[in-house]
Formats: sequence, C-alpha cells, structure tokens
Amino acid sequence: APAAIPANDRELVLDRRLAAPRAAVWRCWTEPELLKQWFAPLPWTTADAELDVRAGGTSRVVMRSPDGDEFPNRGLYLEVVPGERLVFTDAFVAAWQPSDKPFMVVELTMADEDGGTRYTARARHWSVADRETHEQMGFHDGWGQCASQLETLAQSL
Amino acid sequence: APAAIPANDRELVLDRRLAAPRAAVWRCWTEPELLKQWFAPLPWTTADAELDVRAGGTSRVVMRSPDGDEFPNRGLYLEVVPGERLVFTDAFVAAWQPSDKPFMVVELTMADEDGGTRYTARARHWSVADRETHEQMGFHDGWGQCASQLETLAQSL
Repeated sequence: APAAIPANDRELVLDRRLAAPRAAVWRCWTEPELLKQWFAPLPWTTADAELDVRAGGTSRVVMRSPDGDEFPNRGLYLEVVPGERLVFTDAFVAAWQPSDKPFMVVELTMADEDGGTRYTARARHWSVADRETHEQMGFHDGWGQCASQLETLAQSL
Repeated sequence: APAAIPANDRELVLDRRLAAPRAAVWRCWTEPELLKQWFAPLPWTTADAELDVRAGGTSRVVMRSPDGDEFPNRGLYLEVVPGERLVFTDAFVAAWQPSDKPFMVVELTMADEDGGTRYTARARHWSVADRETHEQMGFHDGWGQCASQLETLAQSL
C-alpha cells in the first residue's frame, strides 16, 4: 500500500509496517502493563497507566522524564473496534466533560499486511497552529521511536 | 426533584418538567420532520434537518432568520441512549474530524416525572469565555422558548 499522508494541514501521520502480529500490537495499546513498556520514547518512561478501553472510557498515562519529573496525560476513547481501530482525544477528561484545551484527536488503525501489521496513526488538531506545535515538539521522531519500541515488544508476545 | 444547576462556570443548564411523555420528547429530538417544527425559537424557523442519530453520526440543521437568511449548524452525536440520553457536540464535523471551533457539548437527559418528563439540557463549554458568550447570545430565553415549543409538539403526538 502507498504510505498514508496527511489529509489536510491540521493532520500529522505516522504510517509504518510493523513486523509483529496485529493482535499483539492491539494488546500493547490496550493493556496497561504492556503500554507502560513502550509508550514513552526512551530515556523517558511511563510511570503509570490506567486504561478504560471503551467508547466514553478514560485513560490516564503518566510519563516520567529522565530527571524524574512526572507528567500525567488524560484522555478519552471515542471509538474502539478491537484489533482494528482506536480513537482517542484530549478534548474531554470524562464523558462528557470538556478539557481545558482540546489539542488533538488520534485515530489509530491496524491492518494485516504481509504477515505483519500496517500501523497508521493520524493526529488531527483543532488548529493549524496546534499541528505546527505538535510537529515542532517532535511528533515524527517521538512517534517513530515509540513505534519501534512497540514493534519490539509486540514481537516478543 | 430539585432543579439542576450548573456544575461549574463553563456550564449552562436548562431544567424543566415537560407535560408530555418521554417517548414523544425523544421523537421530537431525533426525527427530522418533528425537529423542524420546534427547534428554532420563533420567528426563526428550521429550514432543514438531517440527523444520523447514533454515536459517531452527524447532524446538519439549518436555521432560518425572519429575513430569510440561513445558518447551517453541523454537529456529531457522542452518545445515544434511546429515550434517555442524547449527547452531541460541534467539536467534530464527522467521525473523527475536528471542527474549526469546539464551542460546546450538550448532554440532554429525559426521565419520567409525575406523568410528564424531567427534561435537562447541560451545555458545557471549553472555556468560561464561551460560556459567557453563549449566555449573552440568549441561551436561557432561547432554549426556554424552544422547550415550550417542543412541549407543545410532543403533547400533540
């Protein structure tokens, strides 16, 4: 398949073939003990993860910097299709309570491809400025490194 | 029951007992030909309504001013519990495409009360400024007038 590209100037895309089974990739996104092993780009780590994986359910993931500072991230799942599609956003902190800042909605899709998994993450923003900020924060390097960490873990399951 | 009040300074609430059956109130919100008869505060009218009433489905409602100008409003349903709860927002124009301006999420609940319906609408905003703007646009008068129009129609069904 041709590589996925952004649909517009508010979207960032990571698109990879992962050499791991789709079911394992899904588990890495939805089981807290697995997510904690790959979700932050090393040397950052994931100190804690609580995932209520259902439409309207919330997530809380705490990232830890190399200096030991912790950064909690709260989100909400908008759509859950096991093994295929996971959509979440920071626009709500609970069903249906607006957050202080709606920054992005992420649509993850997974599909079988040549014995591995086509893994596509689309991060869509409410403004071009937020897309630019996210890109400058290192979206491509960060998500790319995490995808590699995810692939390694998924291969081991 | 005591009247519902805003949970915080980003929320506006309309809370009424309607002298109409809950099933009829639900129909007025979810059937386009009914919604068109009450949704705009007269002398405004509703020129068109397309409602895909399911989680992730979209709505398009066109309001018409007394001068004949038309104003389309697009929204997306986040949660649909038939006869009980309807949640929608303008933060998405489709599943899951961010809109240009996430302004509010509305949570409507309906419950049986004394042979009629306890009807509660909570409009939650992403900022205090947006809540103030909505209040100054006439939220209470507008939603109140529409609730009366809705009640009259629901009684006739």
